[in-house]
Amino acid sequence: MIGRTAAAELDAADPLAGLRHRFDLPDGVIYLDGNSLGALPRAVRPAVLDLLDRQWREDLIRSWNTNGWWDAPGRVGDRIGALIGAGPGQVVACDGTSVNLYKVLDAALTMRPDRSVIVTEPENFPTDRYIAASVAERRGATLRLCDPLDVASALDETVAVCCLTHVSYRTGRMYDMAAVTGAVHDVGALAVWDLAHSAGAVPLALDADGVDLAVGCGYKYLNGGPGAPAFVYVAGRHQADFRQPLTGWHGHARPFAMAPDFEPDAGVRRALVGTPPMLSLAALEAALTAFDGVDLAAVRAKSVSLSELFIALVEERAEDFVLASPREAAQRGSQVCFEHPEAYAIKKALAEWDVIGDFREPAILRFGLAPLYVRHVDVWDAVDRLVDVTETELWRAPRFRERDAVT
Amino acid sequence: MIGRTAAAELDAADPLAGLRHRFDLPDGVIYLDGNSLGALPRAVRPAVLDLLDRQWREDLIRSWNTNGWWDAPGRVGDRIGALIGAGPGQVVACDGTSVNLYKVLDAALTMRPDRSVIVTEPENFPTDRYIAASVAERRGATLRLCDPLDVASALDETVAVCCLTHVSYRTGRMYDMAAVTGAVHDVGALAVWDLAHSAGAVPLALDADGVDLAVGCGYKYLNGGPGAPAFVYVAGRHQADFRQPLTGWHGHARPFAMAPDFEPDAGVRRALVGTPPMLSLAALEAALTAFDGVDLAAVRAKSVSLSELFIALVEERAEDFVLASPREAAQRGSQVCFEHPEAYAIKKALAEWDVIGDFREPAILRFGLAPLYVRHVDVWDAVDRLVDVTETELWRAPRFRERDAVT
Repeated sequence: MIGRTAAAELDAADPLAGLRHRFDLPDGVIYLDGNSLGALPRAVRPAVLDLLDRQWREDLIRSWNTNGWWDAPGRVGDRIGALIGAGPGQVVACDGTSVNLYKVLDAALTMRPDRSVIVTEPENFPTDRYIAASVAERRGATLRLCDPLDVASALDETVAVCCLTHVSYRTGRMYDMAAVTGAVHDVGALAVWDLAHSAGAVPLALDADGVDLAVGCGYKYLNGGPGAPAFVYVAGRHQADFRQPLTGWHGHARPFAMAPDFEPDAGVRRALVGTPPMLSLAALEAALTAFDGVDLAAVRAKSVSLSELFIALVEERAEDFVLASPREAAQRGSQVCFEHPEAYAIKKALAEWDVIGDFREPAILRFGLAPLYVRHVDVWDAVDRLVDVTETELWRAPRFRERDAVT
Repeated sequence: MIGRTAAAELDAADPLAGLRHRFDLPDGVIYLDGNSLGALPRAVRPAVLDLLDRQWREDLIRSWNTNGWWDAPGRVGDRIGALIGAGPGQVVACDGTSVNLYKVLDAALTMRPDRSVIVTEPENFPTDRYIAASVAERRGATLRLCDPLDVASALDETVAVCCLTHVSYRTGRMYDMAAVTGAVHDVGALAVWDLAHSAGAVPLALDADGVDLAVGCGYKYLNGGPGAPAFVYVAGRHQADFRQPLTGWHGHARPFAMAPDFEPDAGVRRALVGTPPMLSLAALEAALTAFDGVDLAAVRAKSVSLSELFIALVEERAEDFVLASPREAAQRGSQVCFEHPEAYAIKKALAEWDVIGDFREPAILRFGLAPLYVRHVDVWDAVDRLVDVTETELWRAPRFRERDAVT
């Protein structure tokens, strides 16, 4: 049996161990839901207070010039770009992931005017499907659902755009971005990736992989805070042809000219719409400093180490739980998922024992492993309590079986 | 000549004078740009710190249930509803004004399937025009520009929706909402109002006036902070037919079922898309408490008093400035605008003398009068410095003639 000491030894040898101190974590809580809401980076509080007390209170409207508000979406975007393998000038932080997906899918259809199929997969995050269906309906296109494990067989010359989430929210299954993007390009279509569960946890190489367009989330592994602005990537070669539907003045070439007609900015700013939520954007900008000097390859190595430990411990000690994530690390993001018929009650019981995981329908326990602040001992303790909750059948208590409004 | 003492006497008699203490204003600054970015309400700082230190840091993902995050868009929406004459369950706070306008215009076209004209006016805020043009282009509709002073003549049986900004960003000209809405209904079209420069400054009666759909801004007279979430109003009678294009999971009837197809929430939540920026939304929610117990009729009375004083002083002392706002108070929102060929340099020179106004192309000086924190003596002092800046020709200095990135 793998003992807690062995886990502690892995932490002692962890080159990223010091990063945990960049986060302000509550005492005694084992937080394994950083893929739903990242923990609070210590840099956020002073940044938000500066925004409130100095920028908003004192400088007021002048902050657009004096405190760099106008450039914030691109400045934060470039910081995110550095984490996803995107060179400067191709990413902006703005709006939410779903709004951004609407922009890029509509733009993609315009970029492939002779084609009318949007490909996605049936297990994609539901919002991505809803948004794709809505764009398709309004643009006279068709939504085609592919086999999640065989995307290529759904691709042909009618496909305008293939839109997939890189790491599955439900199972953590991860696509080979380069290979799928290549297959999409082979039929002349555009590859759109949703990086919600990838950015900040998995090394990405958007430029090198030839990705066309991408969106992603600011509040999961990027730790930008609840509802932090999302981001959009538009590859430099596509920017001149990127015409998105939400033509707001922040995306205009001359926003203060108040011109009668929309003329998009020459660059990626054309993906912007209106005034960004500066409190939330400042929090995201500060949160990203938690990645300063961090090598994403080391993040990935630790993520794999945490995940392998988690799986090994569960299979050794809690055999009722069936692994719902791919067993092979290369096909898995930074989360591990297990099926259990009582998953919901077990998740609630674990929370009472200070282990915060997540539940997804119909019977999946989901544990996100954020390598910047999760330790191997956290994984050991979490599985230990999982075993306790199961063996004592604590989860049978009625209070754990009642569904919360937000599950 | 109207003396400063007379202005001070008006303040002494002002029933709203005490509200100024609900704001944390910088010393010595006369802030007349609250229609661009409202000042910081004192209630915001503790609310934001609670969100950071307790809700995000300690409760983490549990906050969706324990700290009411899920219900926040509707809860804040109802607070805004109370300020715009909308009963509960018809307003949500979310996204930005432009994104929300896209939603309602697209939905309006779906609600009038046999019609294909969107009417707006050429002096509308440019983003509103851009968004209307974009929706029209994608839905096969036509954008028709009306005479701003004679909307009715552009209305006929082909019009699906008429979309106007209630108070003009440039001149402060205010429409008669009831009359225009009635004329729009007379031809069977839908009335959409942008309340960006109205909400929190002018009494509104959306329900009583029969308004169909509306959007508005959270960071102007509502003081929610830079880029605060905007809002959407969907009249109860239209909610079942309101199908907006940004079909995100927060607008789903059963968001956690992760169902394959989009099924809108029964109520106004169907206007939501994704996770709201909670820091910015919490700031807005706290900011709205500055209106607690405040009678908007009294707000309007003070707004008119401030505006009339401003106009009288300028006409008495600074005859080079030509009033660009309607002279009649009933046709004016809570701002006064003046044309002057050197408007831009004068605005910058005034800022150096601690009077913060705004500039709009091509030659308009714009002063927003937020009745919750602007005093009559502020107006007097502002005009006094305007006279000084003009008489000394301070604005001729080169530093005032250079355009800032953000004007």
